[in-house]
Amino acid sequence: MAYVTCDVGISADGYAAGPHQRLDHPLGEGGTERLHRWMFETPDENRAELDAITAADAFIMGRNMFSPGRGEWDLQWQGWWGDDPPYHQPVYVLTHYPRADLVMAGGTTFSFVTGGIQEAFDRARESSGDGRISVAGGAATINQFLTAGLIDELRLHIAPLTLGAGERVFDGVPALRLEQMSSRSASLVTHVTYRVLR
Amino acid sequence: MAYVTCDVGISADGYAAGPHQRLDHPLGEGGTERLHRWMFETPDENRAELDAITAADAFIMGRNMFSPGRGEWDLQWQGWWGDDPPYHQPVYVLTHYPRADLVMAGGTTFSFVTGGIQEAFDRARESSGDGRISVAGGAATINQFLTAGLIDELRLHIAPLTLGAGERVFDGVPALRLEQMSSRSASLVTHVTYRVLR
Repeated sequence: MAYVTCDVGISADGYAAGPHQRLDHPLGEGGTERLHRWMFETPDENRAELDAITAADAFIMGRNMFSPGRGEWDLQWQGWWGDDPPYHQPVYVLTHYPRADLVMAGGTTFSFVTGGIQEAFDRARESSGDGRISVAGGAATINQFLTAGLIDELRLHIAPLTLGAGERVFDGVPALRLEQMSSRSASLVTHVTYRVLR
Repeated sequence: MAYVTCDVGISADGYAAGPHQRLDHPLGEGGTERLHRWMFETPDENRAELDAITAADAFIMGRNMFSPGRGEWDLQWQGWWGDDPPYHQPVYVLTHYPRADLVMAGGTTFSFVTGGIQEAFDRARESSGDGRISVAGGAATINQFLTAGLIDELRLHIAPLTLGAGERVFDGVPALRLEQMSSRSASLVTHVTYRVLR
């Protein structure tokens, strides 16, 4: 059985991104750069959690996490992460628009999946040999996986701000029973890891 | 200057109560008893946080926190807490229906305020001598105080479940800048204390 984790940085009111995401505001408007201050300003303090985010055998993400574009692909766009993305494994990108695989340096290959979350999940499970799969975001993708009961371990990284609008984790997801596996406080974030009970 | 704190137990998706609150489900439906398991099952582990909840010189709460009834008062109803409520100080209850003060044992007096949050705040400030005021809930009351900029310190007690519906803290509240004052993990809850920045 694959083991599926999900890391997501959220505001205290549960938003993973503000409204109006676009190229110059990849996480939307409203002070969202503060969502991830802990990553950039206190990385040493949060090394274990940061390392865990990219410690999987395959990744799944929504198109909006890969690209600011919508509609037909701009084939020049190769993701937000430069030549050597931090994944180093297959990454399955959910999209309605077919695109050929994009092989990057360091072992990261982006594959574009048009068959929805089940196809992405099946392909990630196959490529990982039933290993560890990370659902990398954004909120809409996470919510689809939570609703489908496909996430085993949910890691919230709660930042000290509220956004009041945007893309909210858990929106539209039926009530979940969770087990608090661990919780750790750092200076700019509270990390909470839940096991999703079936 | 009075110092205003607010303690609220919430689900991982931010609900302080489920839908359809009533006498036999004071926190609404949907497994909400699990919101407060940490209080009842692991009180010793959470003694500091529990003591802090009732450590104020005056309290303010919404009517729905005081009573399952709506509309005209049932004068037999004296709150959920029995003869000796845990407040031991003046408690201002927001309501649209006037009612005489209710003096309980142990120093708790419930006063019923029909002039909205500002009147409740002014009376709490006066009776406490500009001391420590606790906004005790529920979510609708907390959200009014947050929107008015009247809360200095917000203490979230995050329980391991999601509700998917109900009364949500921060709903309708403009974006807030918060400073994470402290964060502590216990086995059934994560406590996070924020200072609300102005």
